[in-house]
Amino acid sequence: MSSTTTTAGTSFIDPFSATIDLAEGVMTDFTRRTERKASSMRGHYADASALERLVASGDPLHYEVFEKPVPEEYGHLMYCISKLYPGLVGEEYFMTKGHYHSILQTGEIYLCLRGSGFMLMKTKDGCFAAEKMERGRMVYVPPYWAHRSVNTGTESLVSFCAYNAEAGHNYGDIETEGFVKRVLKAGGVPVIR
Amino acid sequence: MSSTTTTAGTSFIDPFSATIDLAEGVMTDFTRRTERKASSMRGHYADASALERLVASGDPLHYEVFEKPVPEEYGHLMYCISKLYPGLVGEEYFMTKGHYHSILQTGEIYLCLRGSGFMLMKTKDGCFAAEKMERGRMVYVPPYWAHRSVNTGTESLVSFCAYNAEAGHNYGDIETEGFVKRVLKAGGVPVIR
Repeated sequence: MSSTTTTAGTSFIDPFSATIDLAEGVMTDFTRRTERKASSMRGHYADASALERLVASGDPLHYEVFEKPVPEEYGHLMYCISKLYPGLVGEEYFMTKGHYHSILQTGEIYLCLRGSGFMLMKTKDGCFAAEKMERGRMVYVPPYWAHRSVNTGTESLVSFCAYNAEAGHNYGDIETEGFVKRVLKAGGVPVIR
Repeated sequence: MSSTTTTAGTSFIDPFSATIDLAEGVMTDFTRRTERKASSMRGHYADASALERLVASGDPLHYEVFEKPVPEEYGHLMYCISKLYPGLVGEEYFMTKGHYHSILQTGEIYLCLRGSGFMLMKTKDGCFAAEKMERGRMVYVPPYWAHRSVNTGTESLVSFCAYNAEAGHNYGDIETEGFVKRVLKAGGVPVIR
């Protein structure tokens, strides 16, 4: 795509398309793939030794993000396919690191295409919310809410996401603050506590 | 949902979900529905008398937009299901009015769920682009590009859309400028000219 910067600071680019298999939840023509393995999740799970056993047993993929990136500037919209694998770390379901946006007053849309789980959300003030994720459910993560997805199913949890391209990601505060609640497998079913 | 305005001018609201049937392309729990009938499309089609015959024969629905609105402020993301009915006005396929965003440097994402057609796009400088729309195809409408969808199929053309909530809609400039090219049925197939 061509790209030139305008006086307003928002790049002019040509229109384009991406192709998404809406049944499988796959972006077939992505140009950037980001992966997080188990080893990148240190500090996030309650059972640190269970995570270390997982890392030692091959350090499997935890989640992946597929994109065709656009300029990270006001007016552009970043979008991606987020794919979170199923599994447990001790009693705790696989989850993403979770983040605030660096520009705190920007939100995000998650349109779930596959799998089942929860979107956990929290604010700096200690508010907490959880929304169920399943195919066809769109979760609105409003401005100011940190967000983390949790896969409580047996297949991958896959969502189409869209957010302000200038938003940025702040992972550090979640590493420091934690996330108020965890999703654990108890008696064979997911429990938020 | 609760809503309070922060010092930054972006409302704090609680997270929520919407439910979208990804096969049918229906938002089952929308709270706002906007409709455009044939009579609201005057001035847009080449064959004005064909449009008047359509208006006289019951003024059918042309397209509908389904939403669960959020505050129209920076940081929020508006989203909707857009449903454009199939049909012809003379030789010209049913289309939306088309618009620039009032804040010109904001883009939009269209994730097509059903049907087939084109997204026509143009700039103030006279650039023109067309992207095919069909299930699973995501069209990126970049900042500065006016956009109009055209249904060249036999069923409704349905997309999930997302854009900056503060973007606004500017329809007037398209009424004045037109859209560079039209999509006509010629020899039984769609032709852009």
